Amino acid sequence: MTGPAPTDVHPAWLPSEVFRAIGSRHCLVRGAGRLVDTVFAEVERACAEHGGSVRRDTEGPPPALVLALVAAVGDGGPAELDAALTDLHAVDGGPLGAEGYALARHGEVTVLLADQPAGLLHGLFHLIRLGEAAFGAPHAAQPHRPAMDRRMLDHWDNVDVHPVMGQVERGYAGGSIFWHDGRPRRDRARVRAYARLLAACGINAVAVNNVNVHATEARLLTERLDDVAEIADEFRPYGIRVHLSVTFAAPVVLAGLPTADPLDDAVRAWWAETTRAVYARIPDFGGYVVKADSEGQPGPFSYGRDHADGANLLAEALAPHGGVVHWRAFVYNHRQDWRDRSTDRARAAFDHFAPLDGRFRGNVIVQVKHGPLDFQTREPVSPVITAMPATLKAVEFQATQEYTGQQRHVCYLAPWWSEVLRFGWGDDGRTVADVAADGGGLVAVSNVGDDPFWTGHPLAQANLYAFGRLAWDPRLRPAELLDEWIELTFHPETSADPDLLRRTLHEIMDDSWRTYERYTAPLGVGFMVRPGHHYGPDVDGYEYTPWGTYHFADRDGVGVDRTRATGTGFTAQYPRPWSRVYESSVTCPDELLLFFHHVPYEHVLHSGRTVIQHIYDTHFDGVAEVEAACLRWKPLVGLVDAAVHARVTERLDEQLRCAREWRDQLNAYFHRKSGVPDAYGRPLH
Amino acid sequence: MTGPAPTDVHPAWLPSEVFRAIGSRHCLVRGAGRLVDTVFAEVERACAEHGGSVRRDTEGPPPALVLALVAAVGDGGPAELDAALTDLHAVDGGPLGAEGYALARHGEVTVLLADQPAGLLHGLFHLIRLGEAAFGAPHAAQPHRPAMDRRMLDHWDNVDVHPVMGQVERGYAGGSIFWHDGRPRRDRARVRAYARLLAACGINAVAVNNVNVHATEARLLTERLDDVAEIADEFRPYGIRVHLSVTFAAPVVLAGLPTADPLDDAVRAWWAETTRAVYARIPDFGGYVVKADSEGQPGPFSYGRDHADGANLLAEALAPHGGVVHWRAFVYNHRQDWRDRSTDRARAAFDHFAPLDGRFRGNVIVQVKHGPLDFQTREPVSPVITAMPATLKAVEFQATQEYTGQQRHVCYLAPWWSEVLRFGWGDDGRTVADVAADGGGLVAVSNVGDDPFWTGHPLAQANLYAFGRLAWDPRLRPAELLDEWIELTFHPETSADPDLLRRTLHEIMDDSWRTYERYTAPLGVGFMVRPGHHYGPDVDGYEYTPWGTYHFADRDGVGVDRTRATGTGFTAQYPRPWSRVYESSVTCPDELLLFFHHVPYEHVLHSGRTVIQHIYDTHFDGVAEVEAACLRWKPLVGLVDAAVHARVTERLDEQLRCAREWRDQLNAYFHRKSGVPDAYGRPLH
Repeated sequence: MTGPAPTDVHPAWLPSEVFRAIGSRHCLVRGAGRLVDTVFAEVERACAEHGGSVRRDTEGPPPALVLALVAAVGDGGPAELDAALTDLHAVDGGPLGAEGYALARHGEVTVLLADQPAGLLHGLFHLIRLGEAAFGAPHAAQPHRPAMDRRMLDHWDNVDVHPVMGQVERGYAGGSIFWHDGRPRRDRARVRAYARLLAACGINAVAVNNVNVHATEARLLTERLDDVAEIADEFRPYGIRVHLSVTFAAPVVLAGLPTADPLDDAVRAWWAETTRAVYARIPDFGGYVVKADSEGQPGPFSYGRDHADGANLLAEALAPHGGVVHWRAFVYNHRQDWRDRSTDRARAAFDHFAPLDGRFRGNVIVQVKHGPLDFQTREPVSPVITAMPATLKAVEFQATQEYTGQQRHVCYLAPWWSEVLRFGWGDDGRTVADVAADGGGLVAVSNVGDDPFWTGHPLAQANLYAFGRLAWDPRLRPAELLDEWIELTFHPETSADPDLLRRTLHEIMDDSWRTYERYTAPLGVGFMVRPGHHYGPDVDGYEYTPWGTYHFADRDGVGVDRTRATGTGFTAQYPRPWSRVYESSVTCPDELLLFFHHVPYEHVLHSGRTVIQHIYDTHFDGVAEVEAACLRWKPLVGLVDAAVHARVTERLDEQLRCAREWRDQLNAYFHRKSGVPDAYGRPLH
Repeated sequence: MTGPAPTDVHPAWLPSEVFRAIGSRHCLVRGAGRLVDTVFAEVERACAEHGGSVRRDTEGPPPALVLALVAAVGDGGPAELDAALTDLHAVDGGPLGAEGYALARHGEVTVLLADQPAGLLHGLFHLIRLGEAAFGAPHAAQPHRPAMDRRMLDHWDNVDVHPVMGQVERGYAGGSIFWHDGRPRRDRARVRAYARLLAACGINAVAVNNVNVHATEARLLTERLDDVAEIADEFRPYGIRVHLSVTFAAPVVLAGLPTADPLDDAVRAWWAETTRAVYARIPDFGGYVVKADSEGQPGPFSYGRDHADGANLLAEALAPHGGVVHWRAFVYNHRQDWRDRSTDRARAAFDHFAPLDGRFRGNVIVQVKHGPLDFQTREPVSPVITAMPATLKAVEFQATQEYTGQQRHVCYLAPWWSEVLRFGWGDDGRTVADVAADGGGLVAVSNVGDDPFWTGHPLAQANLYAFGRLAWDPRLRPAELLDEWIELTFHPETSADPDLLRRTLHEIMDDSWRTYERYTAPLGVGFMVRPGHHYGPDVDGYEYTPWGTYHFADRDGVGVDRTRATGTGFTAQYPRPWSRVYESSVTCPDELLLFFHHVPYEHVLHSGRTVIQHIYDTHFDGVAEVEAACLRWKPLVGLVDAAVHARVTERLDEQLRCAREWRDQLNAYFHRKSGVPDAYGRPLH
């Protein structure tokens, strides 16, 4: 059932070495169920590779590791197992839940306990992260439970190759691992290997097709449901449920109904029956993902209904089967008139959704991009996240690096995500992570394709890993997560210079998001990318377009006035203290200044520098940091896999070229516009 | 042999009505040859439609029209025929040449004489333009000879649909009339109808594939030569020779030779043999068109050779068969560093080619774009045109409206082309037209596709018509040409209000090129279009790219300094007086000011306005003119074909939308940069 990744594919964070601590010992697995079988198979393979043994019955040599369902305790097994359960009850009386587990060490035996099979699986990967440390000093049972029940990846994969967007919309890692040229890929082992990687970092749900649902993709819901079921079969052994992006117009385009009106009885009946058929074929199906009335996708507006009507239609169909609908809040006018400074795309999601709070069914999850615009390198947290107390909300991140270097640039995103998750709304101390933990969970747009390194840039694997881990535990620190990922992926202890390897990866990655921010759009103003593909600089690229993404730079200043006093009023969508903090250019954090304010180039930041000098300085600094990264990477040759070294070298070269282009274009643009020379006399062009 | 255009295709300037004057009379055709047969067939069809008669023998009723080869005079026929020949000899002793003809009227008989069959064909279309006027007062023989022997269209048509550029590169009239999806089109009647239209405006050569020669197109030269021969078969009855764009790398990509070095004996032998095979299949083949070492196309530079070596290689192969090579001078560095202000794309063609003067074989035609950049709405005349006295040069225009509205905007280009053709080089009074008439001729990139109106915008037909006529006689005035085209195409005398129809078309079209100039890039600065597709405004779209097309706008001023004194030195490529006229911002014509000079926004033009106010004014004016055109077009409903009216209405709507976008983006851009308000307080955004 389990198997290694296909031989030409990088093992990512599950190379054989990380199974040594378990695989070299005598192990006992206790309990029944599909995922217990998965655990057994994983341990069995590890033992086959590393000389240990595994069994399911209690006869045999004394085990050094016991992995057991709580229900199986007492039904034989070593005394340490009973002891672990006893002290678990002493430490923590509550159930471990669907995915939780507890780890104890008694005498010479390490014990992993779980209420449910999925918990045992997640516990197994916890043991793998610990390695030999799992077999050290004795300790009482330590329970672990995920902060979020829903830890999801959205794939923006198309079944047919889209004439503009390709096989994967905003994909930077080759083709889709699910689809190829209109058909499912034959390489199901690759999907299974992917499922295993996802389980190992904590993901438990995957949407397998693009939220922009084109003609072929629409039919996955009905006549091509078998294609989805095949993928579900590969994900199921790793505890991952499959979700499907559907088109709101499905009753019309698939069934020929005259309307898709959510209040129409025939429409409701069609969704109910269609959904029943989905569950008949895929009993553990997760639910639907919907982008409606957004960027040209159909939705309830066509019928004079609102998003609550639309979402509830699907939720009603899913409810009998335990499914959920992820209804995206990414709704705005993408045919805006750039001349009209009163319209503000940042306001749109809140304006559309906040008034609907309380009207959504309990199995509707409103899926909110973490920022009010669109996955820029820097944005404030979306006010929608705190605005709808009676609604379940998922927070959406973008692992695929559409606006953060497209996996040609090193950009470790965990610091950015962590900052968002830790953002506190106000006096009650609740954070973004707390909101997501209320039931909606976290979603990320996947950065994976059929590339041999999974993510194009080998170092971008860390983003996928970190996302899963943050969804499990948002309190984890980005640097700790990077430690975990480095140990698993590069197993430095087996290299000639473990310290150099670890230190260099941290030096290159820890601050790489801020480095990227330095050489791209300044101070939260966003965009300035080439239209269409969104790679590389074009300061005015979106300035006179209908997309609502402007910077309003003129000869005197730059930035978007989103204040109540003189601007679009977006700041009023925030609760206190943020509505006040953002309203004033005095209190607004530097890094968001141009998101909220239009200021003169000579405006002095909290840093003591003027805006214009900040632009020059950060752009020179950002490039210098990339130059340093290039130099640092070279000595790792021989310390990391040769193919990884070569691929990263090639990407760093491109990153440096592109970073210089950003620096020179941004500096030239603002120098030409402001007329202000660089304080240090550097060339601005 | 002849036939009307396919029934769903607009007849352009050859509707049935224009044949009435001839077709309602008794006609006599005298002489032998394929093109005499074409003339006979045309007259025969006209007579069948309009009640006249036509015969080839001298027996029968007295003819009102005689069309005869000089060689056939005296061999029977009416006395007026001999009289016409006699007075032709009295008026003009020289031969009429390959394509010339003479028209006389004696008594009640109109006589058309030609030395060669092609002359008779061109004379026939002259008669058609004259209509009833050809049958008025008697007059002695008037000879007509083309100013240029070579009057050519280049089709940038691909055989395979190119993934980026499509079936026709820079095509705005649907698919190719020659190729569809990798194969020749089956609709050969369409090609024949096209040949007829071209002959009727004077074209005598067509290159049938894109100068960017991709893999499939390369094989037209060899294994797919039959496809070219098929097209030649359709063009031959109208006196049009077919040319082929070839890749310089052909010996390597088609024959597997290890090199395409022009001095390599095996390469020379391959071209000689390949060309021999082409002529064996297509005896009247015209020759090769080559874009070498330009925008990624292969060329002699790869082998350390120069353009003369490259062109002479092909010329040597073509010479025994009477063929020519059109070698394009459009060579520049398209990977320029925008930071480097010393490199100037405008200089490139001259720098590459001028030193080679005298080294090209006699059957090499260096094909020069009329301006030094790339078919912008306004450029100076290319200095290459006068720089190489010992070299044949063709002047290349662009009928396809890549940079002039893409056949969605009305832009009658004859005034622009006429201005270029009349441009005088200096004291000797020689013009651009004189240079082209020395043997190289005129070339235009075709604006035709498989659109039912041939050119997308029905009014864009006038550009194709005018180009052919200007190549025949560059002294023709744009307004006269428009008269000709209007009479043929719309036959106003049959409409309910001939004056309104004529007047309105002139009002909309006469000044439409200058209108387009007004609302787009100002004062000769060029570009400012959206990169890639080149439609609509994007002021900085090419500003920080490798393409060498910059405006250098900053907060103080705008324009490119191409002077000897302080700039790139491009002005030195011109002979006097132009080198001096362009060198000084005082003498430089307003419309080219920003092509040659970087000036402050407050610089005062000869018009008395500042540059910045000129920008604002012309952009408001240009849009107002388009608004007026929209209003003027409406009352023509009922006076022109309904489908034409509807199509033009739709295009005008888009032109107005786009012109407003140009106005507002350009004005906003320069207002934000300069800070100067409009003198009249109009909104600048």
